[in-house]
Amino acid sequence: MSREDKSTGQVIFNISKEKNFPEWYSEICKVAELADIRYGVKGFTPFLPWSVMSMEIMYDILEEVLQRKGHLPMLFPTVIPESNLKKEADHVEGFTPQVFWIEYIGEGEKLEERLALRPTSETAIYPMYSLWVRSWRDLPLKRYQRCSVFRSEVKSTRPFLRGREFLWIESHNVFKTHEEAIAQVMEDLETTKEVITDNYGIPVMVFKRTQWDKFPGGVNTYAADTLMPDGKVIQLPSTHDLGDNFARAFNIMYLNENNETVYAYQTCYGPAISRIYGALISVHGDDKGLRLPYKIAPYQVVIIPIFKGKTAEQVLEYCKAIHDKLTKAGIRVHLDDSDATPGWKFNYWEMKGVPIRVEAGPRDIKKNQAVLFRRDTMERETVQIDKLKSRITKLGKEIDANLRSMAEAKFEGLIVDADSLSAIDDALDNGRIARVSFCTTEMEGLECAEVIKDKTGGEIRGTRIDVEEKAEGVCVACGKPAKEVVYIARSY
Amino acid sequence: MSREDKSTGQVIFNISKEKNFPEWYSEICKVAELADIRYGVKGFTPFLPWSVMSMEIMYDILEEVLQRKGHLPMLFPTVIPESNLKKEADHVEGFTPQVFWIEYIGEGEKLEERLALRPTSETAIYPMYSLWVRSWRDLPLKRYQRCSVFRSEVKSTRPFLRGREFLWIESHNVFKTHEEAIAQVMEDLETTKEVITDNYGIPVMVFKRTQWDKFPGGVNTYAADTLMPDGKVIQLPSTHDLGDNFARAFNIMYLNENNETVYAYQTCYGPAISRIYGALISVHGDDKGLRLPYKIAPYQVVIIPIFKGKTAEQVLEYCKAIHDKLTKAGIRVHLDDSDATPGWKFNYWEMKGVPIRVEAGPRDIKKNQAVLFRRDTMERETVQIDKLKSRITKLGKEIDANLRSMAEAKFEGLIVDADSLSAIDDALDNGRIARVSFCTTEMEGLECAEVIKDKTGGEIRGTRIDVEEKAEGVCVACGKPAKEVVYIARSY
Repeated sequence: MSREDKSTGQVIFNISKEKNFPEWYSEICKVAELADIRYGVKGFTPFLPWSVMSMEIMYDILEEVLQRKGHLPMLFPTVIPESNLKKEADHVEGFTPQVFWIEYIGEGEKLEERLALRPTSETAIYPMYSLWVRSWRDLPLKRYQRCSVFRSEVKSTRPFLRGREFLWIESHNVFKTHEEAIAQVMEDLETTKEVITDNYGIPVMVFKRTQWDKFPGGVNTYAADTLMPDGKVIQLPSTHDLGDNFARAFNIMYLNENNETVYAYQTCYGPAISRIYGALISVHGDDKGLRLPYKIAPYQVVIIPIFKGKTAEQVLEYCKAIHDKLTKAGIRVHLDDSDATPGWKFNYWEMKGVPIRVEAGPRDIKKNQAVLFRRDTMERETVQIDKLKSRITKLGKEIDANLRSMAEAKFEGLIVDADSLSAIDDALDNGRIARVSFCTTEMEGLECAEVIKDKTGGEIRGTRIDVEEKAEGVCVACGKPAKEVVYIARSY
Repeated sequence: MSREDKSTGQVIFNISKEKNFPEWYSEICKVAELADIRYGVKGFTPFLPWSVMSMEIMYDILEEVLQRKGHLPMLFPTVIPESNLKKEADHVEGFTPQVFWIEYIGEGEKLEERLALRPTSETAIYPMYSLWVRSWRDLPLKRYQRCSVFRSEVKSTRPFLRGREFLWIESHNVFKTHEEAIAQVMEDLETTKEVITDNYGIPVMVFKRTQWDKFPGGVNTYAADTLMPDGKVIQLPSTHDLGDNFARAFNIMYLNENNETVYAYQTCYGPAISRIYGALISVHGDDKGLRLPYKIAPYQVVIIPIFKGKTAEQVLEYCKAIHDKLTKAGIRVHLDDSDATPGWKFNYWEMKGVPIRVEAGPRDIKKNQAVLFRRDTMERETVQIDKLKSRITKLGKEIDANLRSMAEAKFEGLIVDADSLSAIDDALDNGRIARVSFCTTEMEGLECAEVIKDKTGGEIRGTRIDVEEKAEGVCVACGKPAKEVVYIARSY
């Protein structure tokens, strides 16, 4: 429970993340001022400065990597004409049930054609790609846009993790050959690891999804999953090999080196920043609140002046000098010179997850030093002022490495082999992921997947692509010869 | 006309911006690859990398200034419940005719309440502000969001300048007193000058708008206008003193220091980045295409290797070294190592408005130098390699100062006094702004404004706030004693 201290109005956050994750999550969103669920429209949630500032940083990191790998930004309209949306048969079947429709303007003027709020932008972008792509010289075409998308989720919504409007980047790419498209998909998976794991500190497992769980209209879907504190997995970025399916539906053709007009091949990749943010705070937080990675925190350092009677002015001046010095070094730093007591401020900024706290009082001034507190381990150390900047920079890296290795430790022993439905059930009940032999991830396997889901609540996350695995024996559900090794988990 | 060179496929842009601005504008949007008007939904236009990259930089500059002045970012949903939108009577009257409505989801599921795509977000944000603002300690509350907004414009649309979806920042602020709110409005006008003029190089005139031209629901509107090449003015950011009108409509109250519950005062400020981008390319461009300010250009420098026979490899290496050196110095630089001829590349990047070009060939390698070309004046100079970085940085500043002073020169002699309708008409025909004595900018003056609009096509932009002006004589339209000095221009 988090409780309010009546004398100071202060919220003391203390909820077991592992034991009561749903309460932990909704309470931290509220008291750390991340989102406000009182907007009044199901699944639409205002995001507050503390989350928005982190998501901006997360966007910057992701965009830097995408641009370095040759993708350029663009921006398409939020609305898509209904006729576009209906051009690819599987795609329309997959997304139409979730679409918000605009039919009227103002006081009753009817639009000539209904407009959809984009649930994803293939059908907005690809008709233009069919105009832009003319010859092999135009390829590869690698573009992305940063925007929000809209899906009328039927499952219950939760801030960041599942909303009817969410923030993402969608990258849409066109290639001469299917091989190049597949290479792009592999590059996207590398990007996922570089951004999500190396920068955000979130470990992932990468799977090739089953045929019934792929992107509607695509050939194959590859996705990264991470583990949430309640033992369920959640899908983070997915990337899709579209083959030439959309090229055929939207007439994206090019003149090749032999002067023949042929269809192009495509991929798309969609990291949902708001969802990843929800996973990030869940993976890294502890029972006392948020623990933000140094790279992602809006304030990397908060400075708390320790006043003692008439020393206030001198202490404040000392802290301001520290503030200016760190700011000049490019560190995101906040000096909390408000009226509250140091104890109140300690608690507040610990709950908000600021990675490093600097404390300075009269004794520190005399010794020309400051006290550093790191949020991840709750440890203190004393540092000479002239070493402060370099120590903070180093400590930031230590904190991020520590948060990441703590998250990775949860993956150890996570995967257990199971050879029966009850063994799967046991594994999932113990918060594990089951590895099983399975008939097929082609469409014919769907029936077996449904049996497994019924009996265990687990979903097939797909097959591994980073290790060669050979199925042995029979399918755990139907008993026919197994063709594949799949992973089963309870999931978001 | 811009024409295509049949032998090279190259577009040669050459349109008189002053004489044929509409053609100049639509053609440069196309050939410089800024926007594509073929999307197929009236007023909705995909923005291409060359414009998006500049708009991103423009956003960064504006957000840096807003954050430095104490505003924090947040993000509200794109949709607003109809009941919210209807809470402020003047506001609903002003915006409802332009609203896009969502009524259905998926295959016919009707929403309990219609949702509007935000035309502006007062009615989304202020119900939450009424929950967030409790005591004087919560004030001032200074927040902004970066998003797109939707208005069903009836006037003809044009990429960037007027679209049905446009990109902006909207800042929404709450204060204890009306005086503090008015001070915020003045701060916003300073922000406009710092961002739009000092950084984007666009000179502006600031006016207090008339009562019939103010923000629906507000008390007073202040706005910055700039001059377009066709002699018409265009509104850039406007800032609004909302008084306590919206606080009363949305119940935004706080407990003051005397323990009384009282209404708060509010302001909002809305710089439309996409519209400002349209003005920026119009103001700075010339007959040969774009001239982007050094601060705003996606590529500040383009490097063109001058191959001669077998020297290619050596030249390319030399250019790559320059590229890496400039990139390391934080300069946005692009090495064009494509197959096209140097002449083709010169023309292409001049048309795209890259401020500085570096040319290097075998002769330059021998002399350890490079040639610099500046787009604004089309002048060349030779620079020793070890001086290249510092010369480019300095040249960037010179280019921006020059573009700004050329734009400011258009303002000289722009304002002429007029004491009759025909004198106004003459002034406007000569591309001038008329300064006239006028009865009143309160609602009663609207009839006179309509007379002026009828006879001259001019609109009243409002009164000056930076100079004290005393009306003399009678109103130019009705002949009654004049109370105010107003400025009249043809406008977008």
